[in-house]
Amino acid sequence: MIVDARAEAWARLQLAGLAPRALFDLLREFGSAQGVLDATPAQRRRHAHPDAAALLDTAPDAARLEATLAWLHEPGHDLVAWDDPGYPRALLEIADPPPVFYAQGRRALLAGPGFAIVGSRNATPQGCEDAEAFAAALSAAGFTIVSGLAQGIDAAAHRGGLRHAASSIAVIGTGPDRIYPARNRDLAHELAAKGLVISEFAPGTPPLKQNFPRRNRLVSGLSRGVLVVEATLSSGSLITARLAAEQGREVFALPGSIHSPFSKGGHRLIRDGAKLVETAQDILDELSVAAAPAPEGAAPKSSEMADPHARAIVVALGHDPTDVDTLVARTGLSASAVIAALTALELEREVASLPGGRWQRISRRA
Amino acid sequence: MIVDARAEAWARLQLAGLAPRALFDLLREFGSAQGVLDATPAQRRRHAHPDAAALLDTAPDAARLEATLAWLHEPGHDLVAWDDPGYPRALLEIADPPPVFYAQGRRALLAGPGFAIVGSRNATPQGCEDAEAFAAALSAAGFTIVSGLAQGIDAAAHRGGLRHAASSIAVIGTGPDRIYPARNRDLAHELAAKGLVISEFAPGTPPLKQNFPRRNRLVSGLSRGVLVVEATLSSGSLITARLAAEQGREVFALPGSIHSPFSKGGHRLIRDGAKLVETAQDILDELSVAAAPAPEGAAPKSSEMADPHARAIVVALGHDPTDVDTLVARTGLSASAVIAALTALELEREVASLPGGRWQRISRRA
Repeated sequence: MIVDARAEAWARLQLAGLAPRALFDLLREFGSAQGVLDATPAQRRRHAHPDAAALLDTAPDAARLEATLAWLHEPGHDLVAWDDPGYPRALLEIADPPPVFYAQGRRALLAGPGFAIVGSRNATPQGCEDAEAFAAALSAAGFTIVSGLAQGIDAAAHRGGLRHAASSIAVIGTGPDRIYPARNRDLAHELAAKGLVISEFAPGTPPLKQNFPRRNRLVSGLSRGVLVVEATLSSGSLITARLAAEQGREVFALPGSIHSPFSKGGHRLIRDGAKLVETAQDILDELSVAAAPAPEGAAPKSSEMADPHARAIVVALGHDPTDVDTLVARTGLSASAVIAALTALELEREVASLPGGRWQRISRRA
Repeated sequence: MIVDARAEAWARLQLAGLAPRALFDLLREFGSAQGVLDATPAQRRRHAHPDAAALLDTAPDAARLEATLAWLHEPGHDLVAWDDPGYPRALLEIADPPPVFYAQGRRALLAGPGFAIVGSRNATPQGCEDAEAFAAALSAAGFTIVSGLAQGIDAAAHRGGLRHAASSIAVIGTGPDRIYPARNRDLAHELAAKGLVISEFAPGTPPLKQNFPRRNRLVSGLSRGVLVVEATLSSGSLITARLAAEQGREVFALPGSIHSPFSKGGHRLIRDGAKLVETAQDILDELSVAAAPAPEGAAPKSSEMADPHARAIVVALGHDPTDVDTLVARTGLSASAVIAALTALELEREVASLPGGRWQRISRRA
C-alpha cells in the first residue's frame, strides 16, 4: 500500500499496545489516530486509564516502526483501521473489535458474509476431508471461509474455501509476516494471493501463547456462524464456539463416533444447544440461504480412478460395510481383482477397510 | 400355569380379536372377563360398537382355543390380564394398553423399571457392540432392557441385558410360540429362561406385517426411556421413539458419522429434541439414577488376549489413528511383531484398520 500520514499514525498507535477499549475511548474523544497522537499526555489521561494513556507518552521503538512501515509498503499489504470505510461491519458488532489490523490479500473479502470452520489440530483424515468439503460447498454458496490457519481442520477449511469464489480468510495470531506453524507456509501464501490473511499483531510479532485465543474472537466475529468439525474437549475451537454464541452467531457441530475423542467437543456443543448438521445444505437452510449448485470437482470422477474395476467396486460397495465375497458376487470380478481395486481405492481414500475384512465407502460430498 | 376359569375366559376374549378400546369399555361395564362373556349380545351392544360386540357373539375357533390353553398349561407360560395385580403399571399409563398378553419367563421383571434399546436390523458391528454395552451397563444399574427381538440392535440389546441382574424383556410381534426371525431362536430361549418374552398375540399367530409396528408401543410403554442405536431414516425404531415421546418417555440417541446411513435416524431425533448420549452414565444421570458399579467383564482383560504383545500395542495405540511405524517406535517391538499383534487384535475386534495403513482402538465400554 501507499503509506500516508494516516496509515503511519495508525501504525504508531497499534505499536503502542493499548487495550482496544482504551484506544477506542481516545479515538472517540480526539476523532482520529492523528488526533490521539497530537493530543498532550495530560489530555489523553483525562479520557483513558492513566496506565494505558502512558503507553503513548513515548515514541514507539524505531526499529519496529520501521519494520512495520516497510511491511506496509509492499504490494498487497494493507492496514485496515476502525475509521476505514472497508472495516468489516461484522466486527463492529462484537464486544471488542480490534481498532486496527494488518491485511494481506483480497481486502474485498472483508465485505462478504463469512462463515467459520474450526476444529482440532491433530484431526483425523476423515475430519479434514469433511472440513474441506463443507468449506468448498459454503464457499461455492457465497460464504467466505474464516479460520485460524492452524494445522488440521483449520488448514483443511482454508483449502476448501479457496476452491470457490468466496475464498477464505485466515486470522492469524502472529504478525502478518510470521507464519505459524511453518508447515502452513504454502497455504498462507496461497491465501495471501487468492484469499486474505489478517492479523491484529504488528509485523515481527512472534508466536506468543496468549495471542492465539485472542484471535478466536475475530474468527467468529467475522462470521455469520461457526461450524466445529472434530474437536476434543480441550480444543481451542470450543472457545471459538463459546465466543460465537456470545456474539450472537449460530453455532453448528458435526456429530461423530461416541468412541472418538475428536467427537466429544462437538457433542458437548450439541447438548448445549449447537445445531447438529450432516450436510452443508443444513447450514445454508439454517442461515436462510438459497441452495447453491453443487461444487464441481467435489468428488473424483470415475475416469480419474487408477484401477479399471474401481467404478464397479464403488457402485457395488455402497455405504454398508461389505466383505470381499459379497463384492465378488455383486460384480462378477475375481477375488484378486476385487482386492486389487480395493487397495487402489484405499490409497485414493475412496474406501476404508473395516474390522473383519469388510470395506466401506468414504464420502466426500458435504 | 394352572389354567383356571378366569384364565380361560381371558383367552376366549383375547381370541375374539376386539380392539383394546372396545374390550376395555365392556370390561368396565361387566367387571371381569367372565362378566363380559356372560352378558347377552344385546347387553354388550349397548356398551361397545356393534361391530366389535358382534365378535363375541360366536365362540372362538375351537382349535385355536385348544392350542392357546395347551400353550398356557406349559410350565413358565402365563397370561397377564388387565385386572391382574402383576399387570405392569407402566403400561397403564399409555393410551392403548393391551387388555391381556401372554408371557414366558420371569414375570417379576414386569415390576421393575424398564429401558428400551432399539435400532436397525442390519446395524454395523460397532453399533451392535454399543447396544450390548449400553444394555449391560443399564441392566447392571437396575433397568430391565426392553426390545423387540429383531436382528441387529434389538438382539444385541437383549444379550447385554441378560448379562446382569435386571435382565431383559422381549416384546414380540408373533404368537408367544412363534419366534421370528428364526435366527433368534436361541436368544428367545435364553430370554424365556432368564428374562421374559411377551406377546399380545395368541399362540400360533404367524409373523404378520401389521403386528410389528403395534408391539413397538409396548416396547416404549414398558420403559422409562428409549435409546436409539444406529437407525436409518426408514427404521421402525424411529416409530418407537415417536411413540415413546407421545407416552412421555425420555428419548435418547447415539450420534455417529455423518457418512453412515445408520446415524441419520439418531441425528434426526437429536435435532427434534432427543438427548444425545455418549455413555450409559449419561442416561442414568438424565433418569436421576445413582451410578452403578461398572459391569464386570465389559472389557476383555489383557490376559485373555491371544497375542503376547497385544497389551503393549493397545496401550501404545490409544484412540488416535496411528501407523505401524509409530507403534514400532512406541513399543520397541519389530514391525512384524506389531503387525502380528494388530492382526490378532483385529480378529478379536479390539482394533480396526483405517485407510492409509493406520489403526485405531475399538472401545467397548458404554
